[in-house]
Amino acid sequence: MAPQSLEKDYPWVTSPVIISAPMSGFAGHDLAHAVYKAGGIGFLGALPDIKALRTALEDVTELVTGNRIPEPNTTLPIGLGALLFAQKLDEVVALVAEFRPTAVWLFAAHGLAGFKLWSDAIRKASSETKIWIQIGSVTGAVNLVQSCNPDVLVLQGADAGGHGGEKGASIISLIPETIQALERLGLDDVSVVAAGGIAHGSSVAAALTLGADGVVMGTSFLAAEETKVHPAYVDAILETEDGGQTTVRAKVFDELAGPNIWPSDFDGRALIAESYRDHVKGISIDDIRKSHAEAKQSSELGFGAHNRRAAIWAGTGVGLVRNKAPAAEIIDEVRQEARTALERIVRGLK
Amino acid sequence: MAPQSLEKDYPWVTSPVIISAPMSGFAGHDLAHAVYKAGGIGFLGALPDIKALRTALEDVTELVTGNRIPEPNTTLPIGLGALLFAQKLDEVVALVAEFRPTAVWLFAAHGLAGFKLWSDAIRKASSETKIWIQIGSVTGAVNLVQSCNPDVLVLQGADAGGHGGEKGASIISLIPETIQALERLGLDDVSVVAAGGIAHGSSVAAALTLGADGVVMGTSFLAAEETKVHPAYVDAILETEDGGQTTVRAKVFDELAGPNIWPSDFDGRALIAESYRDHVKGISIDDIRKSHAEAKQSSELGFGAHNRRAAIWAGTGVGLVRNKAPAAEIIDEVRQEARTALERIVRGLK
Repeated sequence: MAPQSLEKDYPWVTSPVIISAPMSGFAGHDLAHAVYKAGGIGFLGALPDIKALRTALEDVTELVTGNRIPEPNTTLPIGLGALLFAQKLDEVVALVAEFRPTAVWLFAAHGLAGFKLWSDAIRKASSETKIWIQIGSVTGAVNLVQSCNPDVLVLQGADAGGHGGEKGASIISLIPETIQALERLGLDDVSVVAAGGIAHGSSVAAALTLGADGVVMGTSFLAAEETKVHPAYVDAILETEDGGQTTVRAKVFDELAGPNIWPSDFDGRALIAESYRDHVKGISIDDIRKSHAEAKQSSELGFGAHNRRAAIWAGTGVGLVRNKAPAAEIIDEVRQEARTALERIVRGLK
Repeated sequence: MAPQSLEKDYPWVTSPVIISAPMSGFAGHDLAHAVYKAGGIGFLGALPDIKALRTALEDVTELVTGNRIPEPNTTLPIGLGALLFAQKLDEVVALVAEFRPTAVWLFAAHGLAGFKLWSDAIRKASSETKIWIQIGSVTGAVNLVQSCNPDVLVLQGADAGGHGGEKGASIISLIPETIQALERLGLDDVSVVAAGGIAHGSSVAAALTLGADGVVMGTSFLAAEETKVHPAYVDAILETEDGGQTTVRAKVFDELAGPNIWPSDFDGRALIAESYRDHVKGISIDDIRKSHAEAKQSSELGFGAHNRRAAIWAGTGVGLVRNKAPAAEIIDEVRQEARTALERIVRGLK
């Protein structure tokens, strides 16, 4: 859409631009820093606990800058995720004004007005901070661009792990149709990045071919050594194959620990395991919650293969995630695979 | 997987290789012939009525060859779709022996054994006829290649319109994971073609980048002038936007005219309309069927905007299908778009 736009606004990046998803609870300062160092764009996940979020921002600032707050008119070269329905605008905006992240990635507002409110407040607090907004529909994307003028649209396909719109296409049709709709309205100076199902370099290359300016990976970074994640959770990710058959989108994953607090048109993709199987069998949510609470008492926190009852968020690309590795190696590998895939196509064009 | 394999086995094709899906009831002799003439691979849809199938094969033979049955050791350069659960093996195999289609595309068997039975019988009846098998999972693909040794795997992503596996990923992760699994087992001399959500040339280019040797389009060809389809059905396709939001996978579409005859792990993607909305509201299937039967009595057969109760199969790419056109124009347009998308990437590589 806006060729080289990411290279201009995030001058440390290497092409193809790999972005680590702001996975709440998983994407901490070590991962964001490692992705930044590898020439990608690293995001901190949203944390509703504002003290924990401040600590994460302090820690990543120390890692990246040696503890100096960015100079005026500069930003911290790290992005920050925001879960709009779950966080307090004033609290997050105060941290944005103080730490000046390079971007804030807005997700899951209760409607368009929420995105507008947050975009305006963040721009006012830190004019250099870019606004990223994640959405999974063509109509939603057009409305958001018209209303909020984001710098980056994160187009999330239905393959994505974790939360997203309950309904949706994959990026295979979502990206071309969205780009066409935006072009028709003259709204095509927004950058587009692709999310959902991307865990192999050929998928990175495919996303660029679809028109994306950069590519988000989430599930792949669950296997990064820098990610904050329980070993049994990682084992589950590494062992799982055939991601389209072994993951599923469902709301029950948000009901395991109590009532679902997500906006009503959201669900999430996770591994098919005991809680979901019980749900399909018609077992009551009260009984599912009870078994879940018991499993959470184990040393594996319900993530272990024996009694897997906690939600293990993962996208359909989970079958391509096979080894634990430093984030830099994960990024190098998909970049190399992407180059190989594109070179094969270029040879075919001759 | 097997570079240039389609060009070798189907020597009339032009790259990128566009394949028209064997849409049962829609893909007749005119469409198959038009796609063939445009340098693609045209398929006749499966017809459980064997007399109608014979007529379609006679008609396409006349169009393609001037009514001559192919010489020994040659084939009719047209493919034939087969719906294994709904057709009689002996009847179809007899027609394959007589008309020698270039390929038979096997879909929806009750399990692996059905695919094996049909593959073997078709190879015996017409040794030059290639075996194509459609599947939507990594495990299924590996098992089919090991068991049936097909010439072509049609990897169908969840974006696809019409029938497919109830569970599944899009081609974004399905193709890379399947190719990786086949390579690991040394089974990678099978050709791979991609299906599901592909209605724009950038998606064609993306599928090739993922590793596909050719690309299947279905929904796009519903708007081809050569397709056998009710005008109100086409209008619905052309008017629909935001395909991920306006289509849905569900079994209820197969229950509208009576009990669902599809194997239990299948459903289909169609436009969200009255019958589906009633189903979500909890209206009984008897009442849904009654309303459907009444709508089928109208001149628009239940496809019209006013009382849309019949299934209108469509993939998530439906929002990219905006005009009725000859099949050759549809193919030319996506080829041009694919070239544009790839050239943009090649420039970016420099």
